[in-house]
Amino acid sequence: MKKQLEFFFDFMSPFAYLAETQLSALADRFGLEIRYVPLDLPVAKLAAGNNGPSNRQVPAKLRYLTADMQRWAKRYNLPPLVFPSNFASERANRGLFFAIDKGQQRDYVHQMFQAVWGRGEDMTDEAVLRRVAEGLGWSGDEFLAYTVGEDSARRFAEANKETHDRGVFGVPTMFVDGEMWWGNDRLQFVEEYLASQSS
Amino acid sequence: MKKQLEFFFDFMSPFAYLAETQLSALADRFGLEIRYVPLDLPVAKLAAGNNGPSNRQVPAKLRYLTADMQRWAKRYNLPPLVFPSNFASERANRGLFFAIDKGQQRDYVHQMFQAVWGRGEDMTDEAVLRRVAEGLGWSGDEFLAYTVGEDSARRFAEANKETHDRGVFGVPTMFVDGEMWWGNDRLQFVEEYLASQSS
Repeated sequence: MKKQLEFFFDFMSPFAYLAETQLSALADRFGLEIRYVPLDLPVAKLAAGNNGPSNRQVPAKLRYLTADMQRWAKRYNLPPLVFPSNFASERANRGLFFAIDKGQQRDYVHQMFQAVWGRGEDMTDEAVLRRVAEGLGWSGDEFLAYTVGEDSARRFAEANKETHDRGVFGVPTMFVDGEMWWGNDRLQFVEEYLASQSS
Repeated sequence: MKKQLEFFFDFMSPFAYLAETQLSALADRFGLEIRYVPLDLPVAKLAAGNNGPSNRQVPAKLRYLTADMQRWAKRYNLPPLVFPSNFASERANRGLFFAIDKGQQRDYVHQMFQAVWGRGEDMTDEAVLRRVAEGLGWSGDEFLAYTVGEDSARRFAEANKETHDRGVFGVPTMFVDGEMWWGNDRLQFVEEYLASQSS
């Protein structure tokens, strides 16, 4: 069985988007399977005991983080990120379990992040969700129903519980061999860890 | 006049300590003068609109950040950081203005950070403050009096105002040419910026 690189994320996060653009190449280079775990970031913060405002509610921090994410985009040779009009990511997050059952989780996460932060699309808009689903060869109706159904609700609740139990308080968070790293800016640490293990 | 590298910090911050260990070499390499600006971090967060808990009050985050800071110590070839028993940094921060008047700010910041995070000493203990001052050739009594006097109170208040006015919401924060970077983990970005300007 392949070693796992676990990726805890929420589609609302631009830094999770940035990390995802690098993740597949990293996993392939070290022969890892990526396990994607979607989570509700505001819930994860509260569950960790952080009842403070979101970064979007702290103007100076939002201004800086916006500059910072564009610096990273430049570093990764990506176009500038486009802020979506909406940060309500629950249906997009829950849709991951549909993708897992189809064995297409990697493509789903990539395509959804491209829609949200690559193009700034509104992930609460059913037309957006449908387009991603149909682009992956699925029935749009089936996918839309799944994202509000019982199965995705149960699995998303389990993922949020696992998030809390494993001490995840922010995204993106990566695990390899039980080691944890938080932040797009720690991908280099993950890479160095993997290189040290494979040498 | 030399170009300035501005360093906004609070002695309570382990990540400011980490950045400081690298700062002098970086400044010297690019011929920069370091301008040190001490600030009251809890006040800066509140002033920025962040009324959430400190990292020390979020157990999962504290656990992770502790591991993260030790990873950075290893990367910088430093001994592991030692948590001080006390995070009340006001007198140590205000003492910086005494050092500035003596032209010894660089040594002061380094020696105080070494006491606090290098050896885990209690920066509210007058014996600790005195030892740092006397190690720099100053009168301990004069220094101790200064850290509770009017001059340092006024200058510290001005520094906290500047912190807010310039959009600083965390430490360490660095500025060069008006560009801002937050975090020990952005020193590499500062270095790349400086290299791009001097080539």
